Amino acid sequence: MKAIGEQAMLYDFYGELLTQRQRQIYEDVVFDDMSLGEIAQELGISRQGVHDLVKRCDRILESYEEKLRLVEKFRLTREKVGQIRQLAEDYRSGGDFGLIDEIERIAGDIMDL
Amino acid sequence: MKAIGEQAMLYDFYGELLTQRQRQIYEDVVFDDMSLGEIAQELGISRQGVHDLVKRCDRILESYEEKLRLVEKFRLTREKVGQIRQLAEDYRSGGDFGLIDEIERIAGDIMDL
Repeated sequence: MKAIGEQAMLYDFYGELLTQRQRQIYEDVVFDDMSLGEIAQELGISRQGVHDLVKRCDRILESYEEKLRLVEKFRLTREKVGQIRQLAEDYRSGGDFGLIDEIERIAGDIMDL
Repeated sequence: MKAIGEQAMLYDFYGELLTQRQRQIYEDVVFDDMSLGEIAQELGISRQGVHDLVKRCDRILESYEEKLRLVEKFRLTREKVGQIRQLAEDYRSGGDFGLIDEIERIAGDIMDL
């Protein structure tokens, strides 16, 4: 299975596109940290069944990411917004007009993502 | 059917999630401005059939937007990036440090979308 952080990120963006049942199982595993055994008992299916369901959710979420790339764009946006804030902060202590140019350039980059 | 601009926007964000055939028909109508009659002839189906296929694509794209709200977030991002650029421009002519605060605040807003 994928790393929890990566799963949480994909779920955050595409979880709405899963079925109610898929969401429930995925949340149990990824956010509530329940064991496969606990979930298997809860649902009355085998541990292997739970494992397969989670893997299937992983694949569905990954296929949305391959098509829409929202997680990737979100990371790039966060990086660029961070740069803008840093430049604004730097400007406050230095007053170099070149920093203002940079801010405008990066703001433009965000729109091209 | 929906307005062309709105259809183009939804297609831009979610078109990858349609089938190859749906994409073809939708592009013919929305981007290539072909008439229903022309497409009907091309596909060997009725005008009504084409109309129904396009309406179905509209509904699919809208349902993704209801769940993921990417078009709405994109519009808000574009608006806020525009504000940042305007403030940077204003700063250039005025030099008011309050504008830098504004830039930082709006950059933060973008991350909360």
